[in-house]
Amino acid sequence: MIDLSHPITTGMTVYPGDPEVRVREALSVAADGVAVSELHLGSHAGTHIDAPSHTIPGGRTVDQLPLDVLSGDALILHVADRVAARERIDADVLGLDRFEIVPAIVAIRTGWDRHFGDELALQHPFLTVDAAERLWQLGMRVLAVDALSPDRTAPGDGAAAAEASCDDAAGGGAADVGVAGGDADPLPVHTVVLGGGGAIVENLRGLDALGERARLGIFPLPLAGADGAPARVVAWTDEDR
Amino acid sequence: MIDLSHPITTGMTVYPGDPEVRVREALSVAADGVAVSELHLGSHAGTHIDAPSHTIPGGRTVDQLPLDVLSGDALILHVADRVAARERIDADVLGLDRFEIVPAIVAIRTGWDRHFGDELALQHPFLTVDAAERLWQLGMRVLAVDALSPDRTAPGDGAAAAEASCDDAAGGGAADVGVAGGDADPLPVHTVVLGGGGAIVENLRGLDALGERARLGIFPLPLAGADGAPARVVAWTDEDR
Repeated sequence: MIDLSHPITTGMTVYPGDPEVRVREALSVAADGVAVSELHLGSHAGTHIDAPSHTIPGGRTVDQLPLDVLSGDALILHVADRVAARERIDADVLGLDRFEIVPAIVAIRTGWDRHFGDELALQHPFLTVDAAERLWQLGMRVLAVDALSPDRTAPGDGAAAAEASCDDAAGGGAADVGVAGGDADPLPVHTVVLGGGGAIVENLRGLDALGERARLGIFPLPLAGADGAPARVVAWTDEDR
Repeated sequence: MIDLSHPITTGMTVYPGDPEVRVREALSVAADGVAVSELHLGSHAGTHIDAPSHTIPGGRTVDQLPLDVLSGDALILHVADRVAARERIDADVLGLDRFEIVPAIVAIRTGWDRHFGDELALQHPFLTVDAAERLWQLGMRVLAVDALSPDRTAPGDGAAAAEASCDDAAGGGAADVGVAGGDADPLPVHTVVLGGGGAIVENLRGLDALGERARLGIFPLPLAGADGAPARVVAWTDEDR
């Protein structure tokens, strides 16, 4: 079994604006007979899942996602050697023309897990709306990435994110037409996947250990009514089956 | 796949003295474009795993437990109709004479998951040291229960726990000889399992859906250097294989 989750540590990288991560000692063996830690973190800390309610009011919450949907055969699209900082990943880069159908779980390996915690973390490559829509049409229901987000992450606040998306629309292809001005969706890939009732997994690591096909398992904490949750994500090798 | 984990909610039952659980809104779709929750909880909240370092100074931490050890064939010992509040579960109650070997994962169904959150939660039945030692000798390395602890939980503080353990020793069998006076170990089953380098899973739910054999998967959050972690725990049915 291969662990695809980042360790959770105090001060670890989080998405801009999210709660900080703190892990501290609450009880100790010496003083209390048992060691217990106290955790403070956001629902989207570290390797985690976005439920539809993360961006879609009234969407399913993380405890409503059936576990059976979160485990199974997956397609791993390795594009790490074809993308650089802030570059778009389109259907051509992904080679989607090869597929008539894809498994419900699709993971994109950008290689950006090596930048988790460094100054390039926010400069990750990101999917085009067209690529997300094509994957959805091919049968994907869970989109996983080894970066902070499948959408572009703006270094600043929400306003900056919207502006970045406008730039994107101006230079983009047909799929971006209609996204314009102050109404631009700063998270268009999220809208495609979560809006369709699917789920997104962010901050995977170690996808380089896998081939193009693998069996993945995503095990989020069952946070009642929440928009997402930190998750342990694993891949099973053939010997595990 | 069957979910064996309690949902995580604000104010949920915790082990006496552990940090309280709080889940609150940090960001909302209306105000921020995305919904994000802020979590505060202990490493032993809800369904969780105890790593050796929970009670053994220098013992392995939760991120050092190999995932392969935490998934696999399990023996489920159903004693829910044979035990009542604060009763001891010994080797006879468990029917251990039937076994020459047991799987590495053994789960005890006391039925106490139905009391999670009610006034009987702390009054759960508990294993004898002898039963824990016999299971260890038979090959168990991960002990799972559907109650707050495999050891007796005292309603009060550590001193009360030590007193309870003395009562236990006075009325107990051969295995309890040697546990006496103020030096009594309040968590003797923990000492057997964690002291041997094994792990304990507490607060499972829903074991009544399983037979005597099942395949279990325990997926804790990868809390770096921590004494334990909340976990998603699942059982696979034959169709999942």
